[in-house]
Amino acid sequence: MIGVDWGTTSFRAFRMARDGTIRDRRSGPRGILNVPDNRFADTLREEIGPWLATGEDHVLLSGMIGSRQGWAEAAYLHCPAAVSDLAASLLRIPEIARQVLIVPGVDDHHAHMPDVMRGEEVQIFGGLLWLGARGGTFVLPGTHSKWAHVDDGRIRSFRTYMTGEIYAACRKGTILGRLMTEDGGDPEAFAVGVRDGSRSGGPGALLHRLFGVRTAGLFGRLEPAGLADYLSGLLIGAEISEAGNGGEGTVWLIGAEALTARYQAAARELGIDARAVEPDSIARGYAAIARSAGLIEAA
Amino acid sequence: MIGVDWGTTSFRAFRMARDGTIRDRRSGPRGILNVPDNRFADTLREEIGPWLATGEDHVLLSGMIGSRQGWAEAAYLHCPAAVSDLAASLLRIPEIARQVLIVPGVDDHHAHMPDVMRGEEVQIFGGLLWLGARGGTFVLPGTHSKWAHVDDGRIRSFRTYMTGEIYAACRKGTILGRLMTEDGGDPEAFAVGVRDGSRSGGPGALLHRLFGVRTAGLFGRLEPAGLADYLSGLLIGAEISEAGNGGEGTVWLIGAEALTARYQAAARELGIDARAVEPDSIARGYAAIARSAGLIEAA
Repeated sequence: MIGVDWGTTSFRAFRMARDGTIRDRRSGPRGILNVPDNRFADTLREEIGPWLATGEDHVLLSGMIGSRQGWAEAAYLHCPAAVSDLAASLLRIPEIARQVLIVPGVDDHHAHMPDVMRGEEVQIFGGLLWLGARGGTFVLPGTHSKWAHVDDGRIRSFRTYMTGEIYAACRKGTILGRLMTEDGGDPEAFAVGVRDGSRSGGPGALLHRLFGVRTAGLFGRLEPAGLADYLSGLLIGAEISEAGNGGEGTVWLIGAEALTARYQAAARELGIDARAVEPDSIARGYAAIARSAGLIEAA
Repeated sequence: MIGVDWGTTSFRAFRMARDGTIRDRRSGPRGILNVPDNRFADTLREEIGPWLATGEDHVLLSGMIGSRQGWAEAAYLHCPAAVSDLAASLLRIPEIARQVLIVPGVDDHHAHMPDVMRGEEVQIFGGLLWLGARGGTFVLPGTHSKWAHVDDGRIRSFRTYMTGEIYAACRKGTILGRLMTEDGGDPEAFAVGVRDGSRSGGPGALLHRLFGVRTAGLFGRLEPAGLADYLSGLLIGAEISEAGNGGEGTVWLIGAEALTARYQAAARELGIDARAVEPDSIARGYAAIARSAGLIEAA
């Protein structure tokens, strides 16, 4: 079978055995924003045509491909959501002879503000299976960081933090970016940022601390070369101290190596035990959904 | 005498009587970033040449003109700072026959992170004189909002919040901006934002709440036309609830009318009494500094 993590700006496909063992993979920049005229069927054939030609019947798609801007809109499932809930709500793409199915996203209406994910749910269940666990706290750092609490095999609740996107917007669109030379490689400036970002304060304290990036440069508290890492630490420190369980239990990181290493370093600074999940465990998530939906037999 | 509020992107000049009564004024876009090749002397002559020709001798400049990127760098004075401290530290521009003097900025090293202002100190003292008071809390909303505490005629402490610049960066550089149609005129969406922004939480909560702007649109909690005002309210609500004295005493707003009205509405929503200072009270600040420096006689 085949699983495709089809996001806004990227396309990652996995061809795998029934147990989720990866046999082949490919990835590229053809996220939904980079598919002209909604030519999703053609794009899929162009990307994984050779796999389909050899007889793989079932294709699961997850991510923004199931959003209003994607191929077809798959309604969000509400928390708590298990693998079997996702499997029971797969959305069939009718225009395609193959069994191409979209995995729905998940929403959380328990919190004061509703929250949503698309694609991360498969990564979380993949991580859970890799761990061999029924629960845990999973973090998917990035443009929109997700913190999800799983127990008894269900995503109970989760929250999104716009950490990565605010970092990018500060670099590109504010005076802070103009003070920065280049992306760091200054772990000490990052650590100072994490500590400053995690200090107690209210939500508005972040608006004040961001100005501190400027004064840290102005008064020589940090070298210009360290300011980008300091800003990154300030935001990630604020995120982790807000979301991080007060340091209870292990936090499982799912993501690209450089970014998970950065979150791991920040968590360590705050006394939180954070460990990385195997990077491609998402494949286990696709296999589990396919098994639960009866698309493939149990391994 | 003449006072010039010479900022990064704007130039505001006042010609005034000894008591600070404004006789004439002009303003334009020739902030220090818009003066090519550091031609500050020429720019000043071009802007207020006719006033100088009629015999005004003393020109006080405040704002970013006194920064490292300006005409000449005037070192920051430390808090607490009074009018007499500013008057004692005026920086003479030597290349000019006229008495052109730069008012130094003020810094605050009491807080964990150092903070700075340039130009706002004159506005604050102007507001204080307009009030006829010796103390109070003054707020200068904007790109970099300043909250200053004054007592016994001295700026004791202050903090900067990057509220306006983060709003602009979110609109220009994040997914939130792409969801927004235009600047609002939706006071109810603004009020909802203020209430959400002021809810209890840590510094990282803001990173989560910003994502709530997206879901508020996604689930129809707000109309697309209200999202810009909601975002503005979220940030201003976070700022005021962090900085706003816990609602004790009156907060005095100094700034352009539309912006002070927005802060006043937000403060009202949070049970804080906020009132606007007369917009051009900065002129009284220049006059007080000039009197204290012996440049002009007491009125």
